[in-house]
Amino acid sequence: MRYIHLLIILFLLSSNFVTAQTEKVKEDFKPSSVNQLGKEFPQVNSEGRVRVRIEAPGANNVQLDIGAVKYDLTKDENGVWTGESSPQDEGFHYYQLNIDGASVPDPGTKYYYGAGRWGSGIEIPAHDRDFYALKKVPHGLVSENLYYSDITESWRRCFVYTPPGYYEDINKRYPVLYLQHGSFEDETGWSSQGHANLILDNLIAEKKAVPMMIVMDNGYAFKAQDKDAKGRPAMVFEEVMMQEIIPMIDARFRTLANREHRAIAGLSMGANQTMRIAMNNLDHFAYYGGFSGTANYPSSDEIDVKTFLDGAFADDKKVDEQLKVLWLGLGTKEPDPFPGSIGAFTNMLKKQGIQYEYYESPETAHEWLTWRRSLYQYAQLLFK
Amino acid sequence: MRYIHLLIILFLLSSNFVTAQTEKVKEDFKPSSVNQLGKEFPQVNSEGRVRVRIEAPGANNVQLDIGAVKYDLTKDENGVWTGESSPQDEGFHYYQLNIDGASVPDPGTKYYYGAGRWGSGIEIPAHDRDFYALKKVPHGLVSENLYYSDITESWRRCFVYTPPGYYEDINKRYPVLYLQHGSFEDETGWSSQGHANLILDNLIAEKKAVPMMIVMDNGYAFKAQDKDAKGRPAMVFEEVMMQEIIPMIDARFRTLANREHRAIAGLSMGANQTMRIAMNNLDHFAYYGGFSGTANYPSSDEIDVKTFLDGAFADDKKVDEQLKVLWLGLGTKEPDPFPGSIGAFTNMLKKQGIQYEYYESPETAHEWLTWRRSLYQYAQLLFK
Repeated sequence: MRYIHLLIILFLLSSNFVTAQTEKVKEDFKPSSVNQLGKEFPQVNSEGRVRVRIEAPGANNVQLDIGAVKYDLTKDENGVWTGESSPQDEGFHYYQLNIDGASVPDPGTKYYYGAGRWGSGIEIPAHDRDFYALKKVPHGLVSENLYYSDITESWRRCFVYTPPGYYEDINKRYPVLYLQHGSFEDETGWSSQGHANLILDNLIAEKKAVPMMIVMDNGYAFKAQDKDAKGRPAMVFEEVMMQEIIPMIDARFRTLANREHRAIAGLSMGANQTMRIAMNNLDHFAYYGGFSGTANYPSSDEIDVKTFLDGAFADDKKVDEQLKVLWLGLGTKEPDPFPGSIGAFTNMLKKQGIQYEYYESPETAHEWLTWRRSLYQYAQLLFK
Repeated sequence: MRYIHLLIILFLLSSNFVTAQTEKVKEDFKPSSVNQLGKEFPQVNSEGRVRVRIEAPGANNVQLDIGAVKYDLTKDENGVWTGESSPQDEGFHYYQLNIDGASVPDPGTKYYYGAGRWGSGIEIPAHDRDFYALKKVPHGLVSENLYYSDITESWRRCFVYTPPGYYEDINKRYPVLYLQHGSFEDETGWSSQGHANLILDNLIAEKKAVPMMIVMDNGYAFKAQDKDAKGRPAMVFEEVMMQEIIPMIDARFRTLANREHRAIAGLSMGANQTMRIAMNNLDHFAYYGGFSGTANYPSSDEIDVKTFLDGAFADDKKVDEQLKVLWLGLGTKEPDPFPGSIGAFTNMLKKQGIQYEYYESPETAHEWLTWRRSLYQYAQLLFK
């Protein structure tokens, strides 16, 4: 047994040694802004490294799992494990801890729904974070709205942002942006890690955006009885959106219920979904925003405009006339297939001569800072 | 090494054997109703046992920590740990997993703020759960309301329930219940694990309660500069409630802004806080509810009515006249000091001849089912 212990100690020492030699870590770590009340860890330094710490005296191996890399932690004499990641991009990241093979949330952070689970999040302070900061400006409300969907035969939920002023002037009516999350996320994303409410509060205070409502629903909607070609329950989000969500919002809230005052946008899977919904229902929407996604995903092939979305982009004059804004955004560090897929889509638009706005988020990947910036840009163009 | 493995196997077998001999577990487990989407574990059986399961192939010891007891789990050949607790009381419980000494949330559940942390929760189906079930009745909205507090020099948040109908008839005004959480909980508790919104939706649908708003704020409010006798930052929740929250709610929402249409209640620490607030401000409140708590906590000593809360209960006629309802509730299984402390308070009321309502929640302890039932009872008496 002594021999085994010695081997383990030598192994730990040697791996520490490698870390120390290859990476100089700047010791200016501060608690993450999205930690639970009173929690000192996780922390972030000025290089964007994430340092985690957890007490696990009986553990054999503890890892930080962030950005698809697992970083080994080291244990001190009190059984407390500490370690840090390589520098991460600015903005918000999902992560988790791995304790002897168990993937669990870090008990130091608040929890967010992403990657198909409620798990830990961390914020690497972005140089431009001011646009989604909580400031002394008038704030709108985010309401949880429960409804029974006859189409899916299930209870569903959307979050509804009403702008400042909604409650003061009880006769005023507002335009509405329908804003969707990405795959393995849900209706909580945009008002939590997305800060959609704070982005609009700030834009409205600066008079850069007109006061508008935002409706954030869940893009997963299945009809139990119907099956798709592969035998899976059929996705019916478009029907839920058009037949249930929009009529409910127009009934429950003081909306301007016409196409000129209705926008739709989404990120990733939500961009794909909402492009289909917009193009199938141009009598309902005058604004479309695709954040890191288009309906030809995941293909990067040249688009055949005659067949793509049943020829929705074939008549360039009609599209230009009906869509007051056709907006696309992408992070400069996004992985395949996003740049290629969106590139194929913009090539088709150029070839057709269809007007569109294009935005690149500097130094961000397929993550929330790209989408916060996209909303910030897109919202300024709406309903003007 | 073989010998060690054999010893471990024998130990595991023997501990299993003890479990099997002493406790017959009924094999009718079902996934908990508050699991994350698609998660099979944790599960609950008809005896109220909680069974958890987690993959942790490298772990030495995994425990389920619930109801202040730690239950050892056992590992199968795939590195998956499983185990269950003794039968738990009906209702909602906080719990966590312990993996080789690390206390972490169970990745199978949704997360709730309690015990000073965001952690796992589980629901042991209560026989009377219908009163807080999500049903096909009109639903109100729960809004997140951000505000800057000049008193505490910090951003704060409250959740506001507006009843069904609030948005249809834009001229109607509503009474308001101010409803507070307990110690180591926060403003999310009542609308999440408390189901305050569903309880009121159901009561209003059955015409057992009048349509009312509920405001749920955070009972922790400190003034950084002021220190209490022990040198800690001074608690200033009463000032925040009276000078900031109530005026803001009356400005932002269509309230009936007078004492006859304002109630206040809280659970545990919140019962203590709100009793002080109510008795110091009887010109603002006509209804008080104390769920598992009173302002003499933690003492069970006889109350001196002349000195208690500056003699607020000394004039029985005034109290009877001003408080249209003075309501107290307690679970029959609550631990010390709650029964003694509340008992001392009711003894004082009896001695003074002050009218009050008293409710006992059958077979529940100092937990959320007691408080859900308390709200259900209390809300029916308000504003009538």
